[in-house]
Amino acid sequence: MSLLGRSLRLHLRGHSVRLASRIIPTSTSTSLRAAKYARSYSTPVTLDPMTGEATSLPDIQPGRLQIIRDENPIPPPPSRTLKFGHTFTDHMLTIPWNAIEGWGAPKIEPYGPFQLEPSSTVLHYAQTIFEGMKAYRDETGKVTLFRPDMNMKRMNNSAQRISLPTFDGEACLELIKELVRIDKHWIPKEPGHSLYIRPTLIGTQKYIGVAPPTEALLFVICSPVGPYYPEGFKPIALYGTTEYIRAAPGGTGAFKLGVNYAPGVMPQKKAAKLGYAQNLWLHGPEHYLTEVGTMNMFVVVRKEDGTHELVTPPLDGMILPGVTRDSVLTLARDHISGKKKLEHLPDNLVVSERPITMTEIKEASHSGRLIEMFGAGTAAVISPVDRIGYLGEDINIPVGQDGMGPVSRPIWKELVGRQMGSIESDWSVVV
Amino acid sequence: MSLLGRSLRLHLRGHSVRLASRIIPTSTSTSLRAAKYARSYSTPVTLDPMTGEATSLPDIQPGRLQIIRDENPIPPPPSRTLKFGHTFTDHMLTIPWNAIEGWGAPKIEPYGPFQLEPSSTVLHYAQTIFEGMKAYRDETGKVTLFRPDMNMKRMNNSAQRISLPTFDGEACLELIKELVRIDKHWIPKEPGHSLYIRPTLIGTQKYIGVAPPTEALLFVICSPVGPYYPEGFKPIALYGTTEYIRAAPGGTGAFKLGVNYAPGVMPQKKAAKLGYAQNLWLHGPEHYLTEVGTMNMFVVVRKEDGTHELVTPPLDGMILPGVTRDSVLTLARDHISGKKKLEHLPDNLVVSERPITMTEIKEASHSGRLIEMFGAGTAAVISPVDRIGYLGEDINIPVGQDGMGPVSRPIWKELVGRQMGSIESDWSVVV
Repeated sequence: MSLLGRSLRLHLRGHSVRLASRIIPTSTSTSLRAAKYARSYSTPVTLDPMTGEATSLPDIQPGRLQIIRDENPIPPPPSRTLKFGHTFTDHMLTIPWNAIEGWGAPKIEPYGPFQLEPSSTVLHYAQTIFEGMKAYRDETGKVTLFRPDMNMKRMNNSAQRISLPTFDGEACLELIKELVRIDKHWIPKEPGHSLYIRPTLIGTQKYIGVAPPTEALLFVICSPVGPYYPEGFKPIALYGTTEYIRAAPGGTGAFKLGVNYAPGVMPQKKAAKLGYAQNLWLHGPEHYLTEVGTMNMFVVVRKEDGTHELVTPPLDGMILPGVTRDSVLTLARDHISGKKKLEHLPDNLVVSERPITMTEIKEASHSGRLIEMFGAGTAAVISPVDRIGYLGEDINIPVGQDGMGPVSRPIWKELVGRQMGSIESDWSVVV
Repeated sequence: MSLLGRSLRLHLRGHSVRLASRIIPTSTSTSLRAAKYARSYSTPVTLDPMTGEATSLPDIQPGRLQIIRDENPIPPPPSRTLKFGHTFTDHMLTIPWNAIEGWGAPKIEPYGPFQLEPSSTVLHYAQTIFEGMKAYRDETGKVTLFRPDMNMKRMNNSAQRISLPTFDGEACLELIKELVRIDKHWIPKEPGHSLYIRPTLIGTQKYIGVAPPTEALLFVICSPVGPYYPEGFKPIALYGTTEYIRAAPGGTGAFKLGVNYAPGVMPQKKAAKLGYAQNLWLHGPEHYLTEVGTMNMFVVVRKEDGTHELVTPPLDGMILPGVTRDSVLTLARDHISGKKKLEHLPDNLVVSERPITMTEIKEASHSGRLIEMFGAGTAAVISPVDRIGYLGEDINIPVGQDGMGPVSRPIWKELVGRQMGSIESDWSVVV
């Protein structure tokens, strides 16, 4: 072994602490192309006016992007064969970070494995956050993202909660757009299809202390996906879960952290064994409704005066501030205020972000005032619910013949129209 | 690109689902040695008596171990330069698993990076569990582990909680012992030093669905460590944390999952800014004491009748069943029962696994009945506490001149004696 190799190995074992990222995505049979992407961004380093020295670390700089094209791109598979998150496009975006140099040069390169040290903190202490976004392609070939600024903002909130480095969301979004442009032929053209975009940020520090990581890696991968309900809406049954929790006050439920997901898998399996599709996560002795599986949750009840009340739990620290959640609320409120009326959406509608208990759901069901219930999230958009198993009995929830309800139906139509670009709105951002 | 290469790339992107593990630890400049380790283990596959077909998947089989020696081992660094978890030994143990073939052939191979797909579920959903164990080497060169059966049992409990595959703990322990034997020259001989062993199990499924993973990897890495308090005990100050939680009922606090660690980093940073070393995690409006940083917690109070009460929170689902916690309790109870008297440990001692609130701590402190408080864990063994910051005031806790208290001192002495092998016990297992 050469002296260099030996020193590298010494380093790899952590004998010396070098902070530059050692994550080297494998990229065989590729060539380096001169980066053509050169929008000028000023480097965000702040210089000390007296000494001229840097006083803050570099942020993400799109101008430093290096593009390494996949020289052997593969043809996207037929859209009908797509399974959620199983297929990935030709390229990925990677941006390394370390505590000494800040954010390094972004790279768009062929999709491929990372080399990760066994001591990487993400593998031990779950230092990971992610986002879920979608890109759509309309008949004219125009590609759009849906409210991507919200994802960038939330990702920074998540990073802060878990002591991962924060970053300039706009700069990151520019790079994501470039990635989508390069792989845009991967976005299926069929209606209801899209490109699912997964930005992820992991701690890659190479020694196993529980601390803010000294190294991190932001990466973005893309997966073409079909519609969640290819054969029309199929309402799901929920298991009102009292034995396990998704979140608690003072915990991490309001952030999109990896840690909120793995612990839900076992309860979901248990719910499935009992014949329910997902967990309805309940909180406290009052059994407050919080979320559904990995989605936000809405209920519509008819009040004494005949008003339709669209209820969702408030952002009290246990609820993920979902982009779809916010969109549903905004569409409903714009309808009520008259800013934009939605056809067929009841006029006697009120919107409430308030706690709601299983007792109230049961009572509304028994008295015929429970109108509908649905989950809301990026993957499924709207997911109607027709049944809740709760403390040994089943509560049935009305659904229309199309699987939807009087509030979710017009809202879903408007939402999907805005996402796909058939209805114009400033939520749709051209790539 | 050859046809084979192309098909591999197609596979890598998840177009086809192949379940055999694709985690290939890099091992350049190594040679394959015939596995000499051949303790005969029967394969744990159950065969159907009628058809002869396998009805359960293979468990971990030490007999299948393959050893690939590091041909360029590096010399362990001087013990005085060691930092916790910064340095790793020549070899690591890896055991792949997949949902179709069960546990595959274990490998001891040179320490080196894994190739992990960007879509690996551990990077997105925090599918990771781990253990912390220590190996000790006495003056005669004898190497021992401390109560390793407890780690294997707990790791299986953790796996179950997070839908990772479970395994034969005894078989896994045999393999860990072999790894320690191969790298035993890495265990520092100096008093208080040991080899920290980190078994880890991660979900490596290559598509981003939130589900029980179809692929996983168990790996074990080892790091030589010095004593936690090289210059004698240094009591720590705790920040009584009411804004953030470590665990909640129905959550994962009783399991050693990665998800319990990353969310604690930011609160720890906040505590440090306020001048406290660690968080004292409190629970509920009553402010029950639960754990200290990443350690279990003990308090000693003098009761009205003069009895010393050693209190630790009960295993109610929020408390990690720590090996050191159990050892402290057992030593105290054996002293009380007369099974093994510990010199200088008070005779009027009682042991209570019961909830204890900050109100009780404050009252005991004010009335002079608070005798001592300490954290207990594998890394630090015993960690005395001299102060708690709570709701704006500091509660002082007595410590002896050596930094310890009348209960922790004799228990620590016995515990460390048993760990190092200077005091004989069946807790010490020869490697």
